[in-house]
Amino acid sequence: MTNLLPKYDIIVVGAGHAGCEAACAAANLGSRTLLITLDMNKVAQMSCNPAIGGVAKGQIVREIDALGGQTGVITDQSSIQFRMLNSSKGPAMWSPRAQCDRMRFSFNWRSTLENTSLLDLWQDDVVRLLLKDGKIEGVYTSLGVEFRAPRVILTNGTFLNGLMHVGRIRFSGGRIGEPASFGLSAQLKELGFEVGRMKTGTPVRIDGRSVDFSKLTEQKGEEDFHRFSYIHVDYKNSLQKRSCYIAYTNEKVHEALKEGFADSPLFNGTIQSIGPRYCPSIETKLFTFADRTSHHLFLEPEGESTIEYYLNGFSSSLPWDIQLKGLRLVEGFENVRIFRPGYAIEYDYFPPTQLYHSLETKRVHGLYFAGQINGTTGYEEAAAQGLIAGINAHLSLHSQQDFILQRDEAYIGVLIDDLVTKGVDEPYRMFTSRAEFRILLRQDNADSRLTPKGVILGLVDKNRHNIYLDKIEKRDKLVDFIRNFSVRPENINDFLLFVGSAPLKQSVKLIDIVGRPQVFLTQLVAIFSPLQAFIEEHSIRSEIIESAEILIKYAGYIDRERMIADKLSRLENLVISEKFNYEELTNLSIEARQKLSKIQPRTIGQASRISGVSPADINVLLILMGR
Amino acid sequence: MTNLLPKYDIIVVGAGHAGCEAACAAANLGSRTLLITLDMNKVAQMSCNPAIGGVAKGQIVREIDALGGQTGVITDQSSIQFRMLNSSKGPAMWSPRAQCDRMRFSFNWRSTLENTSLLDLWQDDVVRLLLKDGKIEGVYTSLGVEFRAPRVILTNGTFLNGLMHVGRIRFSGGRIGEPASFGLSAQLKELGFEVGRMKTGTPVRIDGRSVDFSKLTEQKGEEDFHRFSYIHVDYKNSLQKRSCYIAYTNEKVHEALKEGFADSPLFNGTIQSIGPRYCPSIETKLFTFADRTSHHLFLEPEGESTIEYYLNGFSSSLPWDIQLKGLRLVEGFENVRIFRPGYAIEYDYFPPTQLYHSLETKRVHGLYFAGQINGTTGYEEAAAQGLIAGINAHLSLHSQQDFILQRDEAYIGVLIDDLVTKGVDEPYRMFTSRAEFRILLRQDNADSRLTPKGVILGLVDKNRHNIYLDKIEKRDKLVDFIRNFSVRPENINDFLLFVGSAPLKQSVKLIDIVGRPQVFLTQLVAIFSPLQAFIEEHSIRSEIIESAEILIKYAGYIDRERMIADKLSRLENLVISEKFNYEELTNLSIEARQKLSKIQPRTIGQASRISGVSPADINVLLILMGR
Repeated sequence: MTNLLPKYDIIVVGAGHAGCEAACAAANLGSRTLLITLDMNKVAQMSCNPAIGGVAKGQIVREIDALGGQTGVITDQSSIQFRMLNSSKGPAMWSPRAQCDRMRFSFNWRSTLENTSLLDLWQDDVVRLLLKDGKIEGVYTSLGVEFRAPRVILTNGTFLNGLMHVGRIRFSGGRIGEPASFGLSAQLKELGFEVGRMKTGTPVRIDGRSVDFSKLTEQKGEEDFHRFSYIHVDYKNSLQKRSCYIAYTNEKVHEALKEGFADSPLFNGTIQSIGPRYCPSIETKLFTFADRTSHHLFLEPEGESTIEYYLNGFSSSLPWDIQLKGLRLVEGFENVRIFRPGYAIEYDYFPPTQLYHSLETKRVHGLYFAGQINGTTGYEEAAAQGLIAGINAHLSLHSQQDFILQRDEAYIGVLIDDLVTKGVDEPYRMFTSRAEFRILLRQDNADSRLTPKGVILGLVDKNRHNIYLDKIEKRDKLVDFIRNFSVRPENINDFLLFVGSAPLKQSVKLIDIVGRPQVFLTQLVAIFSPLQAFIEEHSIRSEIIESAEILIKYAGYIDRERMIADKLSRLENLVISEKFNYEELTNLSIEARQKLSKIQPRTIGQASRISGVSPADINVLLILMGR
Repeated sequence: MTNLLPKYDIIVVGAGHAGCEAACAAANLGSRTLLITLDMNKVAQMSCNPAIGGVAKGQIVREIDALGGQTGVITDQSSIQFRMLNSSKGPAMWSPRAQCDRMRFSFNWRSTLENTSLLDLWQDDVVRLLLKDGKIEGVYTSLGVEFRAPRVILTNGTFLNGLMHVGRIRFSGGRIGEPASFGLSAQLKELGFEVGRMKTGTPVRIDGRSVDFSKLTEQKGEEDFHRFSYIHVDYKNSLQKRSCYIAYTNEKVHEALKEGFADSPLFNGTIQSIGPRYCPSIETKLFTFADRTSHHLFLEPEGESTIEYYLNGFSSSLPWDIQLKGLRLVEGFENVRIFRPGYAIEYDYFPPTQLYHSLETKRVHGLYFAGQINGTTGYEEAAAQGLIAGINAHLSLHSQQDFILQRDEAYIGVLIDDLVTKGVDEPYRMFTSRAEFRILLRQDNADSRLTPKGVILGLVDKNRHNIYLDKIEKRDKLVDFIRNFSVRPENINDFLLFVGSAPLKQSVKLIDIVGRPQVFLTQLVAIFSPLQAFIEEHSIRSEIIESAEILIKYAGYIDRERMIADKLSRLENLVISEKFNYEELTNLSIEARQKLSKIQPRTIGQASRISGVSPADINVLLILMGR
């Protein structure tokens, strides 16, 4: 039987966002890889909202892309709307986000998997791990097949003992219409793993034909150069672009929903496990923010032509009729029809403190966990873990050092460090606030941070590497030009007055102009012909201009954070021997004082990783310690 | 609760090929319709091979199309290869068949459903029927919703208590990765319905990257005007066309497979229910045709770009390793990898003799069954039943007469008459041999037979009606032209000699030339300028030329069969009072003698419906009876 099957290096269980990235990375690095999924026609399903990216999450996708992962490319192929969130704030907050065609996203991932050599697919349910002497040896499936491999990555999502709730109705499943997966959890428990239960939810799906869109606020996408991956110059997919819409709950809606609270599994004790605090159900929002008279609801189209809308902000496990009654009281939803109500799902997860930074389990050699199984939520968080697990499973087969990203190198580094060192007490979602050095971890410089590492790994192909080298070269050329080019008052003062910036009295270098907050480089390009000529001569693309401008405008912030980060990494193991009375250190933020008092960190490194303790707070401590 | 939901006229349970046609027909006729399916992202799944049509089945799809159904249009939108099977035989046998892109077929059906007004969708599992006083009142779902409607159509496919088998491995499910549906069968049984068990199977899915196609026989499609629906003039989809490939088993393969017979659920008694005789598993073929040293295997691509192939002819429930061992011994498959093995599935069905011709159940007023639940197999058979059930559910709501097609009007008529009068003792599949009047039931005249009926029903829209009227007008004009136009020897004899037909000695009407078997009208058009001019002047499209030619060439056969059919329909209730000793009637076919002896039909109508008794046999009986 064994000689019938290839000898795999790595088996990935589950073809969601984590599993797909893991399998592609492993295979692209040269490992013979098998990806096992319950349904080959549903790979990389967007089980929740049909969008990729958003605050902090968009940065993660750019990081995945910079390392040679696929989520960014596939999002660009499948997007029906793109926006750069927070573009009016500082560049640390700029966050790309794309609405996607759900079916095409899955189809495009499937095509990518199929076109990855060394990657095989198998449609089946893994029900048991094969182990010997504490090491993984393969998996056993419901069809009775034993697949052997020295490395196994589990990415089971919400399928492990999945239990769904709608009001008082409960039924087993991994998603609506898809069976749960049994057996694995029990085996892992027997092996000594700690198993927990988490809960997440998803909102109603709405029939767009029944909505009065004239009563809602339209939100269109942006038609500019931004996308997730710049490896194809000037790429644009051919899909029809779609708008999102904003609706609002009101007090009548809230009253109607409250009538169902007694039947809510969240409130009547049926669900004990913890849900995502930052993505709460509508009933949780009513409960937690009892004084708010209105909440935003956000309609996201499910594809380029479908009438189906996802109602972001209305996640619920209230009885279906309560959900519908409440919805009907929203302006514009007076006649709304739905395709299915929201539901909650409880599933098994494994507290991620049981993992190394490589995402290998401490308990079973060769076994890796990635995605929701580690207690995270979000496609992007899952995909990032999949990528890292795939890379590390491959590296460890070749006795190479683990690939671990530091907290000042990538959100992915923050994510995994948070998971394995702090653990989770609710479904973990990434935020910019989780990163100590967020001005370093921008969407525009993900490639500078990570592509060279991807090249060393062997995961970045020649094309991507060349695009990257070209960008850096042109960016530096542009910065040099701006740094050295002199501009005379008569050539620029009209413009400066127009944008509300002080006119020049004498010639200055262009860099002094670009550094001004009121001035945007793209405007300058349009009105200032020497700059325009330079950019045309060197074919400097928009994303390169953006990158150069950020480097110039935010140089001060960036340098300072870089300095602190370097200092911190040198001070990582610096022991806090002083017995500080944190409450009295008024230079610290209030939150930092409370957290530091409570946790009493042993080292500066540990202190810096306490959520709520900022780099500035650390600086205060260092000064007090005489550093 | 009830006033939250629309008052539906018709609820359709299941969105396979039957359910989709049923729901569209009902809604398009004006009934407010709800379609409930387990997974809205998997409507109209091609659970078995990725093709529509074929012998007799292709005719059914043309009939569905002629009535205003959707399967033909959607197939044309999704096809990656088209062929007219049996085109070298008589036109009764011409059978359109298309390979389809499985994902696009589903996507296109979903779009069609979404664009059908009066049709709502709901994603859920129906677990119970709501009844009152023996009448249907609605359904109850696993999410706890009561939907009310006076008509319900069940199209549950293989999901009712579905049980899958691979060797000695068994597990519950409707398809791989999809849960079975429980509850309904038990309730129907309690209501007094007879429930049976059937079995079907599906073959391995193959990784095309592992096949040596150079060792297989390629089968390309045909690039001509043929398609399933002519309602869009000159329509061609933009999908890449794909070839199929033929491989062959050999004795080594057979030996390898036989090693698994002891573990086959078909042979060791695990599966008792009956499978499709005409679509047997490979192990059944080896058993039944023990002397054959080779069987055809037919590789069908699953989509325009996927590497996945369906291996037609290798349906199996042998253990997965035996399947793979056997495959590896097929030439070209030496290194084959598979995505999943074949499996058998057992499921509940309801013997269709419990139905009226309208497909309403005799036991519960307002409840209709369509598709595999009636013991049929095949997408086309399912779709046809769905269409008829949808139409009749709507008509009965408006107290209109049932819409019943006669056996000389449509394969659909044959199908339903067979089901409800004879019942099934195995999964029922359509064949041309099941039709007594197959020269009448051609693919080219489905519209002549059925579109006028569809117009009366209100299911055929203006565009389709106009296309139809235009075709008939032009066809008749063309026939008239051919009938009346004289051709002189010097203008045609070169051509006649070239195609091997006797030269003219004097002028004849063109119709005498077209009637000759060696002469094809399209050739004549190309070489004979008056005909060409006429066709161009009147913009006579290819399908109209084909239709005219068949009418001319096969006029004799068609007229005779029409006459017999008319006679038969007059004689339907003619009692066979004579006590024939059928065995001695040597003018009858041997099969007819045996069957008539055994069954001793009471009327000519009944005799004519015995499979194996041909119209010619009936004619013999009529003569003996002095008719």
